[in-house]
Amino acid sequence: MEKLFISYNQIHETVKGIAQEIQSDGFAFDHMVAIGTGGFIPAHMLKTFINRPILTVGMAYYDLNDVKMDVPVITQWLDDPENQITGRRILLVDEVDDTRSTIGYCLEKLLTHDPKEIAVAVLHDKDKPKTREIPPQITRYYRGLKMEDRWICYPWDAEDIWAQDKQAVWSDPPIENPITS
Amino acid sequence: MEKLFISYNQIHETVKGIAQEIQSDGFAFDHMVAIGTGGFIPAHMLKTFINRPILTVGMAYYDLNDVKMDVPVITQWLDDPENQITGRRILLVDEVDDTRSTIGYCLEKLLTHDPKEIAVAVLHDKDKPKTREIPPQITRYYRGLKMEDRWICYPWDAEDIWAQDKQAVWSDPPIENPITS
Repeated sequence: MEKLFISYNQIHETVKGIAQEIQSDGFAFDHMVAIGTGGFIPAHMLKTFINRPILTVGMAYYDLNDVKMDVPVITQWLDDPENQITGRRILLVDEVDDTRSTIGYCLEKLLTHDPKEIAVAVLHDKDKPKTREIPPQITRYYRGLKMEDRWICYPWDAEDIWAQDKQAVWSDPPIENPITS
Repeated sequence: MEKLFISYNQIHETVKGIAQEIQSDGFAFDHMVAIGTGGFIPAHMLKTFINRPILTVGMAYYDLNDVKMDVPVITQWLDDPENQITGRRILLVDEVDDTRSTIGYCLEKLLTHDPKEIAVAVLHDKDKPKTREIPPQITRYYRGLKMEDRWICYPWDAEDIWAQDKQAVWSDPPIENPITS
């Protein structure tokens, strides 16, 4: 599968677009919940444009003792969900909606804490079969880019960030978005 | 005070340097604890070079109900510190050691959970009076850059990321570090 290299600045621009979409939509949320580790960087970028607190939950395919799991396990959950989630408007943030396994699981678990509303924001939503549904209570889903199924190389995974930049498809502004939406 | 603009790629390079220093020092940690929100991005970058789980704690000058505080309050703490901290080697990650208020407070609170060891990693340590001491149990402190007291403009706070890049002092490799260490 062909790799798609993305630079930090491109991610920042994508997040800016998501923020504009959220504001146009009139969704005023109380907190973000960033899914770690993929959601940490997009959530912090988003805070620049919509200044709300960021809470986190951690999901991984290895538990804290380095045992490989078949399904993602929770490495950290909210310490005070009654105060942090119940009756609140939440924006769940992650980097990519791939099989939807992690996002779907987090949504189901967050809904048990009775939020007023949960919306989802992801940088990239891949057009591929999903293993979980978005629960029907979720009516707002903000995607930076809806894209074909590509191998995305994120800048935070780059050993050599300057090589990453050179391989990134987009260029200095204006940004040409090569992905058909 | 003169502003110092920093690009994402420069931060990525600084993190790479911190990772090399940690590896040279032989500090093998079990988990990172990123202090939110400043530590989220450096911690995720560091995970590329040293692949360990990231836990988070949240500290802010506004509580979750938007009430302004004189001292930073905890917006999120670890949900299972006995399993996540006790007997573990921890790397506490934040973006900047300014007055040391947040880092000092977190260290004291983490030490109550009896870790095997805690070390600290920050991108930037400002040479200025500190309101808290690093507790004597902490013997490893990794600084990307030790620097004079400057107003640092981080890339994740930029409304216009391309303007930020143009104002960043350093250039494409080789990176010249203008800050005296």
